[in-house]
Amino acid sequence: MRASQYLVATLKESPSDAVVVSHQLMLRAGMIRKLASGLYTWLPLGLKTLRKVEKVVREEMDAAGAQEVLMPAVQPAELWEESGRWFEYGGELLRLKDRHNRDFCVGPTHEEVITDLARNELNSYKQLPSNFYQIQTKFRDETRPRFGVMRSREFIMKDAYSFHIDGDSLQQTYDRMHQAYTNIFTRLGLDFRPVAADTGSIGGAVSHEFHVLAQSGEDDIAFSNASSYAANVELAEAVAPKTERPAAAAELTVVDTPSRHTISEVTEFLNIGSDQIVKTLIVEGELSDKQKEEGEKTPLVALVVRGDHELNELKAEKLDGVASPLTFASEEAIQQAIGCKPGSIGPCQLAIETIVDRSAAVLSDFVCGANQDGKHYSGANWERDAHIDRIEDLRNVVEGDASPDGQGTLEIKRGIEVGHIFQLGTKYSEALGAKVLDENGKEKTMMMGCYGIGVSRVVAAAIEQNHDDRGIIWPEAIAPFQVSIVQIDAQKSEDVVKYSEELYESLTALGVDVFLDDRDKKTSPGVKFADSELMGIPHRVVLSSRGLKAGKAEYKHRKDSKDGIVELAPEELLPLLKEKLGIN
Amino acid sequence: MRASQYLVATLKESPSDAVVVSHQLMLRAGMIRKLASGLYTWLPLGLKTLRKVEKVVREEMDAAGAQEVLMPAVQPAELWEESGRWFEYGGELLRLKDRHNRDFCVGPTHEEVITDLARNELNSYKQLPSNFYQIQTKFRDETRPRFGVMRSREFIMKDAYSFHIDGDSLQQTYDRMHQAYTNIFTRLGLDFRPVAADTGSIGGAVSHEFHVLAQSGEDDIAFSNASSYAANVELAEAVAPKTERPAAAAELTVVDTPSRHTISEVTEFLNIGSDQIVKTLIVEGELSDKQKEEGEKTPLVALVVRGDHELNELKAEKLDGVASPLTFASEEAIQQAIGCKPGSIGPCQLAIETIVDRSAAVLSDFVCGANQDGKHYSGANWERDAHIDRIEDLRNVVEGDASPDGQGTLEIKRGIEVGHIFQLGTKYSEALGAKVLDENGKEKTMMMGCYGIGVSRVVAAAIEQNHDDRGIIWPEAIAPFQVSIVQIDAQKSEDVVKYSEELYESLTALGVDVFLDDRDKKTSPGVKFADSELMGIPHRVVLSSRGLKAGKAEYKHRKDSKDGIVELAPEELLPLLKEKLGIN
Repeated sequence: MRASQYLVATLKESPSDAVVVSHQLMLRAGMIRKLASGLYTWLPLGLKTLRKVEKVVREEMDAAGAQEVLMPAVQPAELWEESGRWFEYGGELLRLKDRHNRDFCVGPTHEEVITDLARNELNSYKQLPSNFYQIQTKFRDETRPRFGVMRSREFIMKDAYSFHIDGDSLQQTYDRMHQAYTNIFTRLGLDFRPVAADTGSIGGAVSHEFHVLAQSGEDDIAFSNASSYAANVELAEAVAPKTERPAAAAELTVVDTPSRHTISEVTEFLNIGSDQIVKTLIVEGELSDKQKEEGEKTPLVALVVRGDHELNELKAEKLDGVASPLTFASEEAIQQAIGCKPGSIGPCQLAIETIVDRSAAVLSDFVCGANQDGKHYSGANWERDAHIDRIEDLRNVVEGDASPDGQGTLEIKRGIEVGHIFQLGTKYSEALGAKVLDENGKEKTMMMGCYGIGVSRVVAAAIEQNHDDRGIIWPEAIAPFQVSIVQIDAQKSEDVVKYSEELYESLTALGVDVFLDDRDKKTSPGVKFADSELMGIPHRVVLSSRGLKAGKAEYKHRKDSKDGIVELAPEELLPLLKEKLGIN
Repeated sequence: MRASQYLVATLKESPSDAVVVSHQLMLRAGMIRKLASGLYTWLPLGLKTLRKVEKVVREEMDAAGAQEVLMPAVQPAELWEESGRWFEYGGELLRLKDRHNRDFCVGPTHEEVITDLARNELNSYKQLPSNFYQIQTKFRDETRPRFGVMRSREFIMKDAYSFHIDGDSLQQTYDRMHQAYTNIFTRLGLDFRPVAADTGSIGGAVSHEFHVLAQSGEDDIAFSNASSYAANVELAEAVAPKTERPAAAAELTVVDTPSRHTISEVTEFLNIGSDQIVKTLIVEGELSDKQKEEGEKTPLVALVVRGDHELNELKAEKLDGVASPLTFASEEAIQQAIGCKPGSIGPCQLAIETIVDRSAAVLSDFVCGANQDGKHYSGANWERDAHIDRIEDLRNVVEGDASPDGQGTLEIKRGIEVGHIFQLGTKYSEALGAKVLDENGKEKTMMMGCYGIGVSRVVAAAIEQNHDDRGIIWPEAIAPFQVSIVQIDAQKSEDVVKYSEELYESLTALGVDVFLDDRDKKTSPGVKFADSELMGIPHRVVLSSRGLKAGKAEYKHRKDSKDGIVELAPEELLPLLKEKLGIN
């Protein structure tokens, strides 16, 4: 593409409402423009990248045996009433009425529509498994759209839905999708992790999120430095330490800790490490329905973790005997049961059930609250001074923890969720009555999986992961242009035009996306360089009047510093670029 | 694609609500399914064709210098209020409110959004001309959606919008788009005509429609059998006959025509041709504002056309002195002014302005009403018996008329509108204030063009034009599959599997879309043949157990009759298909 015939819509400053880097750079590079809150127009430069992402997604979905369809964006309310989501789905569902006053929505997702299709078109186990996908515009009426296309209202999603005769078949397709997603994000050139995830409200047993690692991510991902293990921090298991608990060496001693309540206040005051103290948190226990009927009082439970660790509430509330959702005991209940305020509780001589985290359970000679306001114990030891009812995994993992799969240690980085795969089970097929005849001629409700990729979000996530202070640094696979050819002082030298046009034509004929910056002298060399870097074009070639007089052109990769400029004869550019681009 | 892994959703019967052939065949071939009134899901087979149409459209738009963008489907009401269309646009505009109670619509078209983009991004004449297009889902809330995807509510459109410093530049881009559309429909393999069209309510001076010729079309298209001339019948000029009016030979004679009023009644009664009689229609004339103020009575005007011709109301109302919109005089007014009922009027001794069609004006010795109920004249002649105030083009063209461009004669066929290009002028740029600085640094409102193709409608139109009683006959360029390989009795012969798989793999590796019908013996050969023909796959190969025993395979083109089956050795199939498909 010639810059003179292209909408080069670069901006020097980023609009003030853009707070994340990808939003700023997409605006500044001229990839998108805001139409209204959460609604963006994709300009030519942005759309080129979006289409490249789509192409990779489509190829891998096809290769994995999924069949592409295209469902309507506007969906009738009746189907959502059948699934129960017409009322369950909150304000994010953009509801509307047509001219005949019938209810519709602009689809945020397509479980209902595809399940309706499946119940009509799939009748026999012989047609299973079937996996249908589409790449399509969705709408979620976010309360507070933000971060540009990262959390917009209208966005492009690849959504796939698979149908199965049983769970084994679902697992097979699920694994195939897991592999397809791995292929997709690998081909896109992104540093990502498939992460075991909570299935949350969508239901179903198994689910993985695919996260692009980037500082600005909204989720904390723990992953092994030696294997493919990765999980949301909330879900990662904190394995038991391999070390045994040392024998007690110190005496249990009461120390005054006046007005010191938090871990940091106490450790600073006592000059100890936060891994030498334990936190004791009092939560409500669980009553059976019968106990409730009989008016039994809610029991309290003590949860103990090491001072440098954080209680994982998800893990805690899943334990037998602990109320779910996790409910912290009131100050009043603690005062009544233990006789002190929450900041002074410890496990010694505690008369309630005590569940101790695996890491806290191997401590000896530790510090803890003395169950009296303003006092702590030092030299506390399990069994001798404090009883343990159960040892459980109670905490969030931290960097350096052993990986739960036994390979390597954990790192933690922030991630941006760009894909999510689910085993839905029969949630929708049951509600809509999507059945087939099995081998024995019996009706059977189909099992379902669903598999999403936020296609437009991938573009933003790629930028969050790949940028510097000069702009975007595109992975080669999704760069809108692979090569930029910068003309300098073309008006002074016919050679500049001749060499750049020849190179442009040769590369274009090879199928390379080239940005030929043929803007006239009113656009300074500095602006051309800045635009090329801002737009993140991986390979940059400069043809200048001055350089060519000395028989030289320049090549530089976007990732290289200024020192990375290579000088070479203009005839050598094409062979060099072909080599860099892997063209034979 | 292997049939065993594909949603083959063919139907023997077409659903009763499908009245046009394309709708019936798209359902029966398994291309689409209805979700709700005017909302269709594209199944894998349908989507493949849709994507092929999109690809051709995209390639030709790119080649014509247009830049692809993607605008939101959901648009804020504010922009439509600026253009005035929020209130003007009728019930087809799907209006809705977001969660914050702000007004939006699901866009039926994007003039407002693109003009908003242009006023923000285009500032200088140097950025012009610019032409932006998108291929995108649109919504029109039709009162009565029908004919499947031909007139659905949600549909896919390619819409382009160009911006210009002046009318010359607009004309150049308009011509380029005209050529691009010609390229597109030619490449798609469709018999089409670009047709001069009325600009109607969209405004602007120049407009062409692109029609695919098909019996089921909603428009009548007149086109030359010897040139590229084509126009909507309503707009085609009926040129003056080259023959001169013969001299009068008969006497003006009153004949009784009791109770005969219509042309057919009178010609049958008098045993004459309908080209020997004239029809005289009385319409209201035009008053100037001043004349209206002065209370002048509306004058009447007589319009005379030959008995076998039809008055063209569009042409008539454009004439000076004739009221627009065309208003026929009431029976009462006619009785009062002429003294008879409308069925007996003629131009002889008529005291009002008489405008005569070019073809009627060269008649002599003709029959006409005698301005007395129940009487006609025979042997009437212009000038001697009836005055002519003006000779004008008043009628619709008919087959066999001379083409207005002087080349050949006109044919008339029905057409389906699949594209429309407009010179919009400044209608939207004026309303939204889309201006640039011209060469002299002065603000100038941009001129605009807009260019649409109903991408999903093209698929239906292609079927309307190309089908027989067995199903669709795809043009090669948009066939979802180019080749079908039918396996027969594969369970009886390893050779059937071997040869068909080899051929499938070889063709697929060459980039050919192949449908390998590997369904097991429960699907009969007859069903496989019928499905291949219903789906319209151009090239069919049969590999059967019985045939291969004799060393023979079969080839047949979809267009050929049963006699067109070619027997050949299985090794000859690949070379034959490569030749047919134009692969070297």
